[in-house]
Order: sequence, then C-alpha cells, then structure tokens
Amino acid sequence: MSFNSFGLLFRVTTWGESHGPSIGCVVDGCPPGLTLTEADIQPFLDKRRPGQSKFTTQRQEPDTVRILSGVFEGRTTGTPISLLIENIDQRSKDYANIARAYRPGHADITYDLKYGFRDYRGGGRSSARETAMRVAAGAIARKVLGETIRIRGALVRMGPHDIDRHRWDWNEVDRNPFFCPDATTAAAWETYLADIRKAGSSIGAVVEIVADGVPVGLGAPIYAKLDADLAAALMGINAVKGVEIGDGFAAASLRGEGNADTMRMDGDRVVFGSNHAGGILGGISTGQPVVARFAVKPTSSILTPVPTVASDATQTDIVTTGRHDPCVGIRAVPVGEAMVACVLADHLLRHRAQNPGAATQARLPTGK
Amino acid sequence: MSFNSFGLLFRVTTWGESHGPSIGCVVDGCPPGLTLTEADIQPFLDKRRPGQSKFTTQRQEPDTVRILSGVFEGRTTGTPISLLIENIDQRSKDYANIARAYRPGHADITYDLKYGFRDYRGGGRSSARETAMRVAAGAIARKVLGETIRIRGALVRMGPHDIDRHRWDWNEVDRNPFFCPDATTAAAWETYLADIRKAGSSIGAVVEIVADGVPVGLGAPIYAKLDADLAAALMGINAVKGVEIGDGFAAASLRGEGNADTMRMDGDRVVFGSNHAGGILGGISTGQPVVARFAVKPTSSILTPVPTVASDATQTDIVTTGRHDPCVGIRAVPVGEAMVACVLADHLLRHRAQNPGAATQARLPTGK
Amino acid sequence: MSFNSFGLLFRVTTWGESHGPSIGCVVDGCPPGLTLTEADIQPFLDKRRPGQSKFTTQRQEPDTVRILSGVFEGRTTGTPISLLIENIDQRSKDYANIARAYRPGHADITYDLKYGFRDYRGGGRSSARETAMRVAAGAIARKVLGETIRIRGALVRMGPHDIDRHRWDWNEVDRNPFFCPDATTAAAWETYLADIRKAGSSIGAVVEIVADGVPVGLGAPIYAKLDADLAAALMGINAVKGVEIGDGFAAASLRGEGNADTMRMDGDRVVFGSNHAGGILGGISTGQPVVARFAVKPTSSILTPVPTVASDATQTDIVTTGRHDPCVGIRAVPVGEAMVACVLADHLLRHRAQNPGAATQARLPTGK
Amino acid sequence: MSFNSFGLLFRVTTWGESHGPSIGCVVDGCPPGLTLTEADIQPFLDKRRPGQSKFTTQRQEPDTVRILSGVFEGRTTGTPISLLIENIDQRSKDYANIARAYRPGHADITYDLKYGFRDYRGGGRSSARETAMRVAAGAIARKVLGETIRIRGALVRMGPHDIDRHRWDWNEVDRNPFFCPDATTAAAWETYLADIRKAGSSIGAVVEIVADGVPVGLGAPIYAKLDADLAAALMGINAVKGVEIGDGFAAASLRGEGNADTMRMDGDRVVFGSNHAGGILGGISTGQPVVARFAVKPTSSILTPVPTVASDATQTDIVTTGRHDPCVGIRAVPVGEAMVACVLADHLLRHRAQNPGAATQARLPTGK
Repeated sequence: MSFNSFGLLFRVTTWGESHGPSIGCVVDGCPPGLTLTEADIQPFLDKRRPGQSKFTTQRQEPDTVRILSGVFEGRTTGTPISLLIENIDQRSKDYANIARAYRPGHADITYDLKYGFRDYRGGGRSSARETAMRVAAGAIARKVLGETIRIRGALVRMGPHDIDRHRWDWNEVDRNPFFCPDATTAAAWETYLADIRKAGSSIGAVVEIVADGVPVGLGAPIYAKLDADLAAALMGINAVKGVEIGDGFAAASLRGEGNADTMRMDGDRVVFGSNHAGGILGGISTGQPVVARFAVKPTSSILTPVPTVASDATQTDIVTTGRHDPCVGIRAVPVGEAMVACVLADHLLRHRAQNPGAATQARLPTGK
Repeated sequence: MSFNSFGLLFRVTTWGESHGPSIGCVVDGCPPGLTLTEADIQPFLDKRRPGQSKFTTQRQEPDTVRILSGVFEGRTTGTPISLLIENIDQRSKDYANIARAYRPGHADITYDLKYGFRDYRGGGRSSARETAMRVAAGAIARKVLGETIRIRGALVRMGPHDIDRHRWDWNEVDRNPFFCPDATTAAAWETYLADIRKAGSSIGAVVEIVADGVPVGLGAPIYAKLDADLAAALMGINAVKGVEIGDGFAAASLRGEGNADTMRMDGDRVVFGSNHAGGILGGISTGQPVVARFAVKPTSSILTPVPTVASDATQTDIVTTGRHDPCVGIRAVPVGEAMVACVLADHLLRHRAQNPGAATQARLPTGK
Repeated sequence: MSFNSFGLLFRVTTWGESHGPSIGCVVDGCPPGLTLTEADIQPFLDKRRPGQSKFTTQRQEPDTVRILSGVFEGRTTGTPISLLIENIDQRSKDYANIARAYRPGHADITYDLKYGFRDYRGGGRSSARETAMRVAAGAIARKVLGETIRIRGALVRMGPHDIDRHRWDWNEVDRNPFFCPDATTAAAWETYLADIRKAGSSIGAVVEIVADGVPVGLGAPIYAKLDADLAAALMGINAVKGVEIGDGFAAASLRGEGNADTMRMDGDRVVFGSNHAGGILGGISTGQPVVARFAVKPTSSILTPVPTVASDATQTDIVTTGRHDPCVGIRAVPVGEAMVACVLADHLLRHRAQNPGAATQARLPTGK
Repeated sequence: MSFNSFGLLFRVTTWGESHGPSIGCVVDGCPPGLTLTEADIQPFLDKRRPGQSKFTTQRQEPDTVRILSGVFEGRTTGTPISLLIENIDQRSKDYANIARAYRPGHADITYDLKYGFRDYRGGGRSSARETAMRVAAGAIARKVLGETIRIRGALVRMGPHDIDRHRWDWNEVDRNPFFCPDATTAAAWETYLADIRKAGSSIGAVVEIVADGVPVGLGAPIYAKLDADLAAALMGINAVKGVEIGDGFAAASLRGEGNADTMRMDGDRVVFGSNHAGGILGGISTGQPVVARFAVKPTSSILTPVPTVASDATQTDIVTTGRHDPCVGIRAVPVGEAMVACVLADHLLRHRAQNPGAATQARLPTGK
C-alpha cells in the first residue's frame, strides 16, 4: 500500500481532513458497465454515520455522497470514479482544549513528530472521518464482486464480554446499536457501555467480517497472499491493533489433527469438513467463507485526566471533552466490511488477469 | 504487495520452488556504499536452517548463499543485489505418498485449484523453503537500518504454554532449540514437543519480534501505516493466521485509561510511561520499541490419517511421512525478524524521501 | 504508470470528464511544510486556459482551482492534496453532430471499442480537458523542486515551419499567442495559422521543454531512467506521437565523435563542452539542462468531411463543427512543462531516498 | 517503471553487471499452463548475441539461458520464472584504459556521480549486456501473447541513410547482418559501416518495430496509455534518444485531413483506410498494426581521442580500444522487439482484468 492509495488494480485513493471543507476518494480500475448511482453507496455510509445512537459521537454529519466522475447514464465507464462528501459539522472549538496538548494513545503526537508541525484540528488526516471514504469505495467494490459474494460484519466482543456464538443471528445485527449478532449479549452491552460512557471512559472491541460466496483461487502463494492483503487492509483501520484469519491466535494452541479441515468430494466439487483456515490456504481462497477478525483499542479521547506533554514542551494533564465514541469498534464494523470488499475486488481482477479461464468453484484441475 | 515482490523502495522479489535446482531473490533499491559480503548474510540463514535439532525437519540443506550482483569490492553499488541458494537435498521420493492426495490444511489444494494443475513436489512455490530468501533479504535490510536499530525475535508460546515474561532474557534465545527467552519454559517445551513429535503430530506457536532503536516518524497516517505493512509482511509468512501490534487483541478488553501511554518530557525529548501501542501510533513509529506478534498454526504434515481427496477426485485418507517440523513456529522466528527488518528498511527510505531533514528522536516540532 | 495515476513517490491521480460537473486530481507524497495556496497554481492554469486568442478553442472556462485538502495555514501538511475545478461551459449540444459518428484520428472509437459503450460527450475522459489537472499538479511539483530548478517550454515548430534557434529569446514566449521564442517566426505563424483556421483545418506542432538547474543524479540506470519516465509522461499527453531527448532522432545521423559531449574540470566541478545528450546519460541527469521535445499531431476535429462509421455500424461522412483548437500543440506547452516538473519532482524524492547524502552538482566521487 | 523492474502484471526484474559472474531476470505474473523451455528463449538470444559478424562487438558470449524456476514438466506454473546467463568472456583488461577516465557520451560519469563511487568494469550495470535479459523476457512475453500476435523489428536508417520502404521485405531481415528489410540498402550499408569501423568511429541508427494482430482495446485513456508505456520501454533501451508511434514527428507537419485514418465497415468490423496513428488512438490499440520507431545514438566507445576528465579530477583525452559495436542500433533490433512484446503482454493481462468479456476485433459496441 502506498501513501494514500491501496489496491493494485481496483485502486482506492482517499484525501481530506476531518476539519477541512470536504473529504473524498478516487476509485480507479473499476470495470465498465456496472450500474452505479449514489443510492448504491449512501446506505453503507448511513450505517457508519455518527450520531445515530447515544453510543456514537454526537457529531452530526449527513455524509451525503456525490459521484463526480466515472459514471455515465447510470453505468460505470471504466474511468476513475471520484466521490466527495462535504464536511458540515466541523465545530473546531471542541478542539480548543487539545490544541496544544497531545492525547496519549492518539496519532497526533506521531503525526506532528513526523511532519514537523502541529495540525490540532481533531487529528486532521488521521481522524477516523477518513473511513467514510473507505465505506463509499467498499460499496463500489461490492458492485464489482456481484451479488453472489456477500460481505457482512458484526461486533463479537466488547471489552471482556464475548457474544455467545450459538445465538449468532445475522438478522440481529441491524436491530441493536452495536451490530451485535446475539440479542442477549446486545442487551447486556447496552447497560455496560452506558456506564462507560457516563464515566467519560471508553472501551475496546473485536469485529468479525465474513465473506460468503468468495470464488476459489483469489490470492497468490507468496507476496500477494489474500490473507496478507486482508491483514494490511484491516490493520490499516484506525485504532486496530490485531488481525486474525479463521482460527487466528487460537490456532497456536492447536495440534495438526485439530487444525486440519478435512475434505471430501460432493459430486465434482471439493467440500470441507470445517473451516479453521478461515477460507484461505497458502494465501489463496478455498471457496469456503472468508473469516477475518480485528481488535479495536479504546479511543484515547476520554474525560479522565491523563499526564501528557504539550507542543510547547511543557508537562500537563489532558481531558478530552469533545464528542467521541465510547466504543469506536462499533462504527468500525461497516469500515471492516468495506476494506474486505475492496481487497476481494482487487484480487478478483488480478486473478482473472492471470487466469482468465479460472473456475470459481472448488473443482479439481484434472479429475484424474 | 504484488505477486512475488514486496516493498516500495527497498523491494524484494523472490523466486524458486522447494524442489527446483535453486531458489533466489533480487533486492532492489538498496543504497550504495554499504559494506556487504556473503558473511553478513550467512549467519541469519544458518539460524533458520533445518536439521539443527530433532525439533526441526531433518532435511539437510547447507543453504550457502551467493551474491551474484550489486556488490563491487565489498560494497553495495546501488544496483539490484541478486542472491542464490542451490537446492541440495531435494529427495522428491519423500513426496510420493502425497503426489496425488491433498494434505488438509495445506496450500497444495488451493494452489492446484487456482493454477489448474498439480505440482506435487512438496508444495512447490508455497513451500516454506522460500522463506530462506526472506531471511537473506532481511540481512541486507539490517545493513540499511544500521547498527542502532536492533531486531530480535523469540518464541513466546508453544501450543497452550506461554513463557513467563518476568523471566525474559534475550541471551537465553540462543541457548535452546526454540528461540525461547525463558529458560524454565524452554525446558518444559523440550519434553512437551518431544511427545508431540513422537506422536507424529504437530503444534502451533506464537512468535514475538521486537525492534529497538527505530526512529520516530516511520510510516504514514493512512495506507502506508507502518503497522499495516508489518501486518501484511508477517501474515504473509507461511502458516501465520494472526498478527498483533503492542497489546494487540488484549487491547479490546482495555478501557481508555488503561490503554493510554502517558508522556512526559525528558530534556527536549518526549518519553512514554508505557508501550501499549507497541511503538506505533496512527501508523507512525513513536521511537519506542516496535513490538509485533504472530500466531503460527501447526503444520498439516502429520502422521495421523486424515480424510481428504485426491487429484483423481476420489476419497482417501492421507498420512504425511516426509521430514517435517513438529512446530514450524520455531523456524518462523528468524523469518519474522527478517520481514520486520525489510519493512523498516523500506519505510526508512520512504520517510527520508518525503522528510529529508526529519528528526530521528521524539523531539517536539516547534517547542512552542 | 497505472491507470489514472503516475509517479512513484510524487504521485498524481486525476479524474473527471470534459462534460461532467468537475475535474480534479489528488497529489500524494508531497513533502510537508512547503508554502502553497491557490495563487501558486492559478497562473499556470491561466496559461493553459482556452479562449485566450482566436487560435485556441473558444470554449470559455475560468478554470478556477480549489485546494480541498493537504494544506493547513498556507503550508503543505504531507497528506494528499486534493484539487478541484468546476466545469462551467459544457455546452453538450455542440456534440450533437458527433453523438453517433466517430471522428477519424480521435480516441472516441478506441474508447468505445475497449469499454463497450458510447460516451459521446466530447471525448469524455480522453478529452484534453484532463490536462488542466496535470498543469495544476505541475505547479505543486515546482514547489517541490524549489526555485533553483526552472522549467520552461516553447513551440519550436508549427506544421513545416521551424523557428530559427539563433533568435531564441525566452522573453518572447509570453508575447505571442503561440509560446514561440522567436518573434519573427511567431509573426509568420500568425498568418499561417489564421489561414488554417479559416479553412476549418488543423495543423501539428513540436514543443520543446527545457529544465535548468536539475541536480546531477536523478534517474537510475535501467528501468527508472529519467529519460524513460519523461518519454512516458510526454507521450501520455493527448495527441503526442513522438518524444525525443537532446539531439533525439538527429542523433541517428551522428558519428561517435559528433555525439560526444566533451568534459573538463572547472575547479572541482565537471563541465561539459556541449549537450547532445539533453542533460541525461545512461538514464541519469548530468547537471546540464534537461532538454525534451515532443510532436503533437493535428486535432481530428475539422470542418472537412471525412469518411467514417457511426455507432449503428453505418457508413457516413463526419464534419466537426464544435469549438476546437486549430493547433492543439500550442496549449500543450504548459502541459509539457507540468509533466516534466512532475517527473523531476518524483525522481528528486526517489534519489534522496536511496542517496540521502547525494551531491547536487557534478563533483567527482572520490577526487582521486 | 521502478528501479529495476517494469510492467504492472507481467513484471520483469533484471539484475547483473557486464563483468560479474552472471546476469539474470525474474519474470513475474506469467499465466500458468503455457509451454516453455529454454529452446523457446534461446533463438531470440542468439539473434542479439555479439560476435556474429564484423559489425558487432567481438566479445564472445554464448549467452546460454537456464530456467531456474516457474516451469514444471515443460509448462509455466504461474509462479516467478527465474532466468540466468553466465558471463563467460569478461576480459576486464580491455577496460584498463578506461578505468579512470570517463567516456564522453557514456553513462559511466553519471553513474559515478549518482552513486558516489567508481565501477569501471565496462559500465557495470549500465552496460548493454543487461539487454540480453530483456530479450529473454520478451520470448516469454511472446508466449503470453500467443501466435496471432507477431512482433518484428528492422533497422530502417543507418546514419543519414534511410531504407527505401517500397522495397520492404521482411524476409530480407534475416539475410543481412543489419536486420535491414531492404536488400539494396543493406548492400550499401555494408560498405558504409565497414569504413566507419575501420576509422574506429561509430554511427547512429533508427529501428522500427511492428506488431501485427494486436487486439483492440489494449491500453487506457490517461496514464496507462499503450503508447506511453511503449515510449518508456523503448526510451529505456541503452543509447536510445527518441521514440515515435505511427507517423511520429512527421505528424507535426500534417494537417487534420492528412492525419485522419478514415474508417468503413467490412461486415461487422471497422476497417481503417490508413494507419497514421500507428495502431493506437487515445492510448488504446485500434486493431491495426502497432508501429513504433526509436533512434539510437552512436556508441561513445571510439578510437578518436576525445577530451575528458578522469576520476582523479584531472584533464585527459580518452581513446576506447575495447571490443565495441560500430553501430549499436543493429543489436537494438531484437531488444526493441522484446520490449514491445513485454509491454503488450502486460497490457493484455491488464485489459482482461478490467474487461473480461472484451472483444479482440474492432466490432462496434452496440451496433445501433
């Protein structure tokens, strides 16, 4: 991934700061002839939008996306698609208290150390606001992938509280403010997070993304591994500190027998007995669901005073009183979905470049 | 990362199969004038080399590296450095039993599904043998980084057994066959792994890499995040299923106060009170040690029969009798070090391209 | 160069169609701390702007550029700089007559054949309107290069009429509507081109770009040759059919003695006796002026009826009555300057990444 | 193009110096299943090989190529193909006389200025010997392109002497030592070049490459223009100073009517009345033959003494007595063919990634 772009053939470049006039992205390499209007993108942005419950920042941003290029009479033209969102609710005064001091755990200190000056407006480029454009690009990626590939995300852990996977119901995800697939746990989180919010604190979380219908063969054995590109894409989301595929870190505790996804034939197709691998073996998709998880740290913008330094090299304590998410992991769910969609779209294009006649299901090459 | 290359400015391209005549790599973008001979590379290869204890595959490969270009009179010339290792002990007959059937959990099935034919020789390109070239490239990356940056790795978990971090001693790493920094745990692992090996089974592990002396400012806020590139590099190692930076998945359980690395001034330098962030904030290095961990699954080559399919689309059970590692995580330690070295070298070049006068220590930009 | 981006470290991505709502670009990799406002960019756009004399298209576009990101308090921040220009004078009705038929010599036929549908609005993406964004990016590139590097262009041939190089005066370039450095020839062209315009025809031209003050060492010996990247950048301008460096095609007629740029010492610096090489030897800049030329074909939008086909696969004759340039080479001058600036800026960043202590003048490495 | 690689999907990385132990390349992204052995590559290397007539350098290099990876049982596997050629006839003593002084017009001065040290062995990396690997890669590119695409080159000018295009006969190209398609001119060149050689001088040349059978749609409208990538590829050949497509610089003298390639329908296909465009319009192939030309300067290694400087910063005259080509343009013919083949192969893969159902002949998109 280069500085502000990712993807080799389906290539997304984003720009814009949280407190500038607008943010945007350019999606390059999209195949021509796909139907696309703003209405295909807006629902995903609405899902990520702040201010929708008391558990997300109260910043009010309609996040209305405009397509500025690359679409003619409702279809993609094969040329770059430029998307733009105006920043409406910038309210810089919220940041007066952090204009000089650095929030521990936040990117503003490293940003200033690297580039050599102070842009105190809410994190500038490193603000999570940039992820709106990832979500928009992800909506286009879904068009490239088509309807047989479905990418869904859920919050599976908040602080120390895991969901119960036996109660997993995708329909529940849209019925609570946490994208939680387990209604019972969602109810418990409601109380738990309200307390954290009232205390002016914040909490970490784990997000899981599942992609169904991914064709076999995406990825490559060495440095274009599908899981490596997913790892970069998900670790690149703000506040993410860990990524895993399939069994992930739990695989470290397994013996070979326990980790083996057995195989059998179903007609002319290979069928797997389990999915420890998370749909990827040797960097290449197996045709099983691709399963990825990532850990999101708690936001560093909290009401508890924390010792820190200021840009005038003095010692101070900082309290962040602005509008912030008590659990940024929640809004990372649609962002994670979008990143997975973009990576899969890129690899779909790459795969058919090198293997134009490739099968999409797990059929054995020779049958002999 | 493109198909068989990684890095933008310090760019490594590897080639070769486990059972071909040789393997190699081309390291492009190395600055000129660095001292470099085979003797700078060989020790790292020796560390990764198989057959050194009963806990690694008995395949005997001297792995003697030759420099074919890019060095003149003992110094790098700025042109591509070509490295080559002959494959000596190919012993293809070991693979007779897996010539037709696919090992569950192994890359050979996806490789064949993607490319449409059967290369049964021990995994071909997807063999871990390719990682020898990563280790060789990593030795050159260390030259680029210079002596103030030190990159070391250790095995911190084998199966369910973690080390005791209070006993961490870097000197122990070279005194046991596991790269374990805790002598007591290493002794316990000796028995544990011997049993697994005798049972013809295998076990997963967790590796930790620590880079000391990394200057502040490496990385970029969005898609060239240092942690994102590390995630891709480490997830791209064979059998890796998870990557984390700093507190990693444990950060999901933390509250904001617990995750905040406090700051204070020490003269004109910023000093941190803890390192939950693992040396990276907002994708940019803080000057603290960079800490990354990755989970390695157990090898799929085991003696226990596992149901699988063969390339003639029949059902079968497979037993892998070849020479394999009971815990591939062990030999992943030098590979992980090398990948971290390559990523850091690439970002060092990128950083000084954009910020030629950049500071290397955490000094505040303006002091006002 | 990938689909809609060019440059490795100073990376420009453009988007937008001639008849969409706006066009724009994202400039990534710009160093932080450079002063930059719209006023630094607008003069270059004004130079390229149509409708300034009877010899360019009468389309009226103010081409007012807006900076949407990447600049804070008048300085670049190191993050992507997004630029946007509204399209004002779209007047699609001009294109009614070419809505179905293809102009011979124009990109619309290949565009439709490649992407599989008809976007008849004045060439859509392949319109020269896109070059406004190259000019804007070039203005930022000049900031990166600093004031010691000066890049200037001139029209040196129109149709069969060359300038007289003995009369070359850079001051003349801004005194005539042709960017012609030779006042006498400019006067002759005035009559010549008026006749062509009245006849509803068009004519080709040759543009020369000279970059003074380029430091030694930009480029690389093999595939990052400075001249190769210049060739791609200039050949990538609309309607360009040829590119040459230094003596260019004339070098084919030279003998070795005639082509040799002799060298002598001037103090501790190497000085050349001539510049047949155009400032580049072996792909690397010598410190002499970089000289490049490119040939621009006549526009295909002419009043003379030409046999062609229409999108309904019928035969027809086409006459293009819209507002077009009789000599598109004229407005290619600022575009050529901008492309050279962007290539040099990219190579400057690349050079200091690999050779941070590099000299900028032609001093011998060892002096021994 | 990055430092030592070119191509986005069909990606070639070369390494090696003229006087090191060997040279080689890695071809990445080649589709699987293509038949490939050394015998497919060697004939192209033999065509480029030195020492075959008195008109090329007498250095004796068998240039026997070995495939080290990426091929299994005679077919490509989709993994990187490593090729290696041993350097046999290095004879460094020939270079004793130029060990200190720089040849005017040669890359050794800029190389030393950039990298800061002296590698006097015949140009090191910048030697034309590197082009052997381009020729080898080109042979693989031809496999990717298949048999319907034919790429042939010819010398069309030597010094001031053009061929007569009415006598063009491709069969003649292999019957004279100049790759000249005009037997009468070839005979005249024999005398002409013999005189130059005896005088210890050298002469420039122009090479033309024609690719027949190129499908429509390769390239892209803006920065992946097929002609821009060809320009970079050909300008990147040693000693090349100019590149043109189709009418090239002559197009500067044409009026719009003269430049228009008229179109008519032939059944359901579009047929062109001429090919001024050289098979490329708006950066995209038309289906007509792709025609490119490039100018090669005379070699700087001549017997005539030329004033120059030495690495000890003294003034001197230089005479180059080694074995050199009196007209390096001759051996550039197979190199030019190879570069065109590599560019076309890369664009073929890119095109089918974005437009998988694309037509290969000039059929109109809608027929309405």
